[in-house]
Amino acid sequence: MIRLFSFVLPLVLILSATNAKADQLEKQANELIDIALQSKLSWQLLESLTTEVGPRLAGTEAEKRARDWAVIKLTDLGFNNIHVEDFTMTGWERGMISVQVGAPYSQPLTAIALGKSIGTPVGGINAPVVRFADFPALLAAEESSLIGKIAFLDGTMTRTQDGSGYGLAGPRRWTGAAEASRRGAIAVLVRSVGTDTGRNPHTGGTSYSDDAPHIPAAALSSTDADQLARLLALKPELQVHFTQTSRILGDVPSGNVIAEITGSKYPDEIILIGAHLDSWDNSPGAQDDGSGVAIVTAAAKIITDYGQPERTIRLVLFGAEEQGLLGARAYLAAHKDNLSQIMMVSESDFGAGRVWRMDTGIAKADEPKADRIQAVLARLGVTKGLRTANGGPDVSVLSAAGVPAISLKQDGWNYFDIHHTPNDTLDKVDPADLAQNTAVYAAYIWMIANIEGGFQPPSKQN
Amino acid sequence: MIRLFSFVLPLVLILSATNAKADQLEKQANELIDIALQSKLSWQLLESLTTEVGPRLAGTEAEKRARDWAVIKLTDLGFNNIHVEDFTMTGWERGMISVQVGAPYSQPLTAIALGKSIGTPVGGINAPVVRFADFPALLAAEESSLIGKIAFLDGTMTRTQDGSGYGLAGPRRWTGAAEASRRGAIAVLVRSVGTDTGRNPHTGGTSYSDDAPHIPAAALSSTDADQLARLLALKPELQVHFTQTSRILGDVPSGNVIAEITGSKYPDEIILIGAHLDSWDNSPGAQDDGSGVAIVTAAAKIITDYGQPERTIRLVLFGAEEQGLLGARAYLAAHKDNLSQIMMVSESDFGAGRVWRMDTGIAKADEPKADRIQAVLARLGVTKGLRTANGGPDVSVLSAAGVPAISLKQDGWNYFDIHHTPNDTLDKVDPADLAQNTAVYAAYIWMIANIEGGFQPPSKQN
Repeated sequence: MIRLFSFVLPLVLILSATNAKADQLEKQANELIDIALQSKLSWQLLESLTTEVGPRLAGTEAEKRARDWAVIKLTDLGFNNIHVEDFTMTGWERGMISVQVGAPYSQPLTAIALGKSIGTPVGGINAPVVRFADFPALLAAEESSLIGKIAFLDGTMTRTQDGSGYGLAGPRRWTGAAEASRRGAIAVLVRSVGTDTGRNPHTGGTSYSDDAPHIPAAALSSTDADQLARLLALKPELQVHFTQTSRILGDVPSGNVIAEITGSKYPDEIILIGAHLDSWDNSPGAQDDGSGVAIVTAAAKIITDYGQPERTIRLVLFGAEEQGLLGARAYLAAHKDNLSQIMMVSESDFGAGRVWRMDTGIAKADEPKADRIQAVLARLGVTKGLRTANGGPDVSVLSAAGVPAISLKQDGWNYFDIHHTPNDTLDKVDPADLAQNTAVYAAYIWMIANIEGGFQPPSKQN
Repeated sequence: MIRLFSFVLPLVLILSATNAKADQLEKQANELIDIALQSKLSWQLLESLTTEVGPRLAGTEAEKRARDWAVIKLTDLGFNNIHVEDFTMTGWERGMISVQVGAPYSQPLTAIALGKSIGTPVGGINAPVVRFADFPALLAAEESSLIGKIAFLDGTMTRTQDGSGYGLAGPRRWTGAAEASRRGAIAVLVRSVGTDTGRNPHTGGTSYSDDAPHIPAAALSSTDADQLARLLALKPELQVHFTQTSRILGDVPSGNVIAEITGSKYPDEIILIGAHLDSWDNSPGAQDDGSGVAIVTAAAKIITDYGQPERTIRLVLFGAEEQGLLGARAYLAAHKDNLSQIMMVSESDFGAGRVWRMDTGIAKADEPKADRIQAVLARLGVTKGLRTANGGPDVSVLSAAGVPAISLKQDGWNYFDIHHTPNDTLDKVDPADLAQNTAVYAAYIWMIANIEGGFQPPSKQN
């Protein structure tokens, strides 16, 4: 009995101390939520970035101005270890576009070059158009069946809260040029990957394949895709004249902007919180990803004013996300020997819709800790989610390399109405929604940075 | 007593016959409403025009194709006396536009040339911008105060059901270039005259004054106007680089397309029903004024299938409305000696919102007849309106010359969200709303063409 008692007593004391710390963490997280919901900082940062820098295509002078903007803001806000990690990327220039329907229905269609697309030959391409009602129809088309043709990749996109419609509709943009080229097409027009009906076409990156000629690729607005479908129904042999002067440039500079709040107790355990600084060139990128930059920066600043966390919080504002996670890949390459220091990655890059779900990518044994965090965030409408989190687009490169991840999933119901269109502007962001995100991140980061024991990756089965 | 009796009896008989005819007219109008609400013809015409012709800027080959389209459709539908009345107008070409904010906030703004604007000098205009919060502020600016400057005419537009917000917001577009030039400005950028918030700028005609140099004029989208206002607040001396290659052309051909249903009893009493065939070049003009063309054509066709009216119904599909009612002016010039034959003018040119009010521009003594017509249309939601009707944009030229007019006012609550923008497309028209309009016009035209006694203009006070 004495031995048992002597064993039990310290355990009770330890558990009691642990519970006291957990209670305190919950109390602190709630205080941070109260502060963040009152704060206007994320809105001010978003307005400043989108107004003063505007569109900031990766590899351009405008993206450089975004990095300068970030360094100044992060310095003013009092972060530590602020620096830019430069990298080099292949540049791209949009140029102009013209898509003109031929006789007897001569009329212009509204379109936008897909990111990283080549241009047409000078004078453009004048060719018949073959419509595919969906992407599987293209994949089913026989080799050589599109020789000399422009492939028109029509299709739908389902509106979803969790953004899963993007995964289903995206392939026509991501690999449509490669798949059409493999079948002989000389150009590809895709229906915008978006949920709106309007004349603003959605840009976004396309990827070529090494085993097929690179062909010019552009997106029609959903309205113009419907128009082209109607015209092809009237005259299947209709020709379209497609001219695009986009081009691949040589090496251009980009970079990731980094800032920290040094941890008081475990400075070498790093909570990496990401967002991306670059945007497409057709809008000031208020939602993609000005909001993410504003949310994570404001949340971290609210924490610095509140108190020093035990672990180090590292903000990484990535460059060149839109061009294929180039900043994230550069970050991984530069830090691959120190990945074990990163105890958690999370990124805000899905607009400014409210966080509604917390997904985890952590060891099963750590799930109860995640549940305690989610329980605090429940006050803000955050539910328990899936166990398949990668943390977000850029940081997925790190979670794929074995770093634990948590995704604070945002409501994406309306996100793809404006994603990659000219309409991704400040006025489309709801200040109250932005504040909810900031509050979620402030409380979340604080709890992750202070929680007893930390997190292991999903690969650690224990 | 006998004399009195002999007087009263025929009057009773006459009144009884009149009432019987009125009752029959009401019954027929209701039958036409039932038919029109089931008909898909107006939608088919609208889809055909906007798909097969697309945008149809006045004076272009596309407007010529619209006339050809109309002649073919009107012939197929079985109208009489189908012909085109040609006229000549001054042509205009949009060209390209670039509005680029200067350092340190370098970024492009989305803008569109105002109709009939000249271009900038080659290489564009690089100049400071002076913002006016509203049009009266410009009017209050002193002579020479804008020398060497670009005037930025900001302002609001109130959403209204009856379109009256257009009258209040319109002057900055209509005469802003002239007023700014008078004060020394070298170019003018106006906030789009529209009620939306988005990146689609609203074009529309501007008018120069002979007493001031003509200067290039363009409209910023509402979102870009807000952005420019924020940037000017940060740096009042900000420069903008404005390049526009629009230009005035020489004489080009346009025309009005005319078709009739000949009256059985009073073929020389004409009910003139209008709409306009031309649109701006940045959209297929589904609401402005494809809908009007479809509504009045379908309504008249439904009448030809129903029976022959007593008076002649004349459809006039005007050309070049957007360039300043040029088709209407040509019509007046060609027909000025026969205006007394026109017993009524009405035009559908306010989109496809439901008709909700009937305004009159007729002799006071004829108001009871108009009231009887409105009472039939009440079933479709049409209320009694004002006594200030001009009949519609084109036909206002005729009512101003003394012809009676009735305006079937459409709900314009959302009209100015898309008016003169690229978004004026088929998918923005509600088929049920279009059918309501067709039913109102079918019943209205039939009653006007058959009502006992006809109508006198407001100038006839009796």
